[in-house]
Amino acid sequence: MSFVSELDEKTAAIERLLTTYLPKEQGWAKTVMEAMNYSVMAGGKRLRPMLMSETYKMFGGSQREIEPFMAAIEMIHTYSLVHDDLPAMDNDEYRRGRKTTHIVYGEAMAILAGDGLLNYAFETALKAFEFDGADLKRCSRALAILAQKAGIYGMIGGQTADIEAENLGADVTEEHLLFIHEHKTAALIQAAMMIGAVMGGADDAQIDIVERAAYDIGIAFQIQDDILDVTSTLETLGKPIGSDEKNNKTTYVTLKGIEAASAQQKEMSSHAIELIEGLGSGGIRNDFLSELIRSLITRIK
Amino acid sequence: MSFVSELDEKTAAIERLLTTYLPKEQGWAKTVMEAMNYSVMAGGKRLRPMLMSETYKMFGGSQREIEPFMAAIEMIHTYSLVHDDLPAMDNDEYRRGRKTTHIVYGEAMAILAGDGLLNYAFETALKAFEFDGADLKRCSRALAILAQKAGIYGMIGGQTADIEAENLGADVTEEHLLFIHEHKTAALIQAAMMIGAVMGGADDAQIDIVERAAYDIGIAFQIQDDILDVTSTLETLGKPIGSDEKNNKTTYVTLKGIEAASAQQKEMSSHAIELIEGLGSGGIRNDFLSELIRSLITRIK
Repeated sequence: MSFVSELDEKTAAIERLLTTYLPKEQGWAKTVMEAMNYSVMAGGKRLRPMLMSETYKMFGGSQREIEPFMAAIEMIHTYSLVHDDLPAMDNDEYRRGRKTTHIVYGEAMAILAGDGLLNYAFETALKAFEFDGADLKRCSRALAILAQKAGIYGMIGGQTADIEAENLGADVTEEHLLFIHEHKTAALIQAAMMIGAVMGGADDAQIDIVERAAYDIGIAFQIQDDILDVTSTLETLGKPIGSDEKNNKTTYVTLKGIEAASAQQKEMSSHAIELIEGLGSGGIRNDFLSELIRSLITRIK
Repeated sequence: MSFVSELDEKTAAIERLLTTYLPKEQGWAKTVMEAMNYSVMAGGKRLRPMLMSETYKMFGGSQREIEPFMAAIEMIHTYSLVHDDLPAMDNDEYRRGRKTTHIVYGEAMAILAGDGLLNYAFETALKAFEFDGADLKRCSRALAILAQKAGIYGMIGGQTADIEAENLGADVTEEHLLFIHEHKTAALIQAAMMIGAVMGGADDAQIDIVERAAYDIGIAFQIQDDILDVTSTLETLGKPIGSDEKNNKTTYVTLKGIEAASAQQKEMSSHAIELIEGLGSGGIRNDFLSELIRSLITRIK
């Protein structure tokens, strides 16, 4: 099967998995559930659950116990988008060509839907603990990684630094920008791959290598976002281009120029693949995973 | 020692405990940490951690493994207040006589501080899993209770139903109002006491009784809130009175009248104490806990 067909098939499988884990819309609190489901089922690459599942397989994992974590990380990614889009934050009306959650359900319900998704991510991940023969040590380690990488020492920390950077305009340093990307983008990709590794039975040294590779993938992914904001079109990207320049936002492209940014992104991506393929020599190769990482820097949306 | 001195001492101990678990304010994400700490250290009765700790002791618990859960539940309670106070929700500028988080730190940072506290609550509770000799089964059961009672099937569900009720004005039914109070208020009190019971080693039947007692306590607590909104003063309550009437809000008092509401609240409180003292006969009595529950319906703020 071609990489693209395999990617499509795996994406569809993750969509089905998400549907089974999302709440049934019922009762007095039905509206928040609708808003949550609307937000999660708005499409997207499903990159984080896919990286998690592929890393899990690379370490020999073959059970369904990874699934609650796959659903959980996509819920956390989604809640961060719902809250990011709010009027007090980025004030975005469209995402992936659809109206954002607060436009459809109102601001109060969008705040609650974000809270609901973050909380439900933990409820969902905790279901892995109830599987027959669940390894509670692995499960609790995986959950601690999820919580840490999503929180103030991870994604929320990056989001905070990003908001602070807005007031600095062109005075944002490369160090500050790296902190933002490491935490806002890379942290959740690290969580995805590290949880796959932990649940698949990786040892501490292997988990460290996965964490480093995921850092490179996260930063390279973010640089590609910055590049696409300059080079893409509204139709391809599904959101307005040139928004970074309009918002006077410091990015890799504004700091380094597009050629240097592009070179750095390719180097980080290659380095990540080297690290991952080095792991494969002691375990199971996962060619799809390498191809997936490679595809992230050639993507056009 | 008198009940009041003991209450003050225990409240002070919980304040110290919270301080040790809250994040150190540092780094690029310092502002969100400041906003989180400002929100949690704004005072308050610390009722949920206290009920948790006292229930834990009633079942013979005497370890520090309960502390991460005590801090976690207060973080969750606080995040719900921070998001409730936002302009898109209740738009409150003052709470407990202090400016609310979004007034001091701005709306974007208040949204992030709420997200940060909810996420950090799980990070904090997960520290209980790392204690020497931690019982991972008990810990994961306690964490699942926390997640469930705080989420869309608990507190967030109640908050959603409450927002829906605002559009109904005087058409809110008693059933709808009970759903709101059960979920918005009682659920987190249930979580507090059930986690205390689980971590203290209670069996399933005992945990069920604790859940029922906490339901009564939660509803009685909420009715007292509704009564105080009519009978108290700004100075005593630390927030404007008469806000329910102003907002055309259906409450126990508007539905039943103040006398019937007061009678129902006393009955529920007595019932809760009966249930709790019945448990004591098979375990350790906790007179302070009974006195604490009694104090909630005689409180004036």
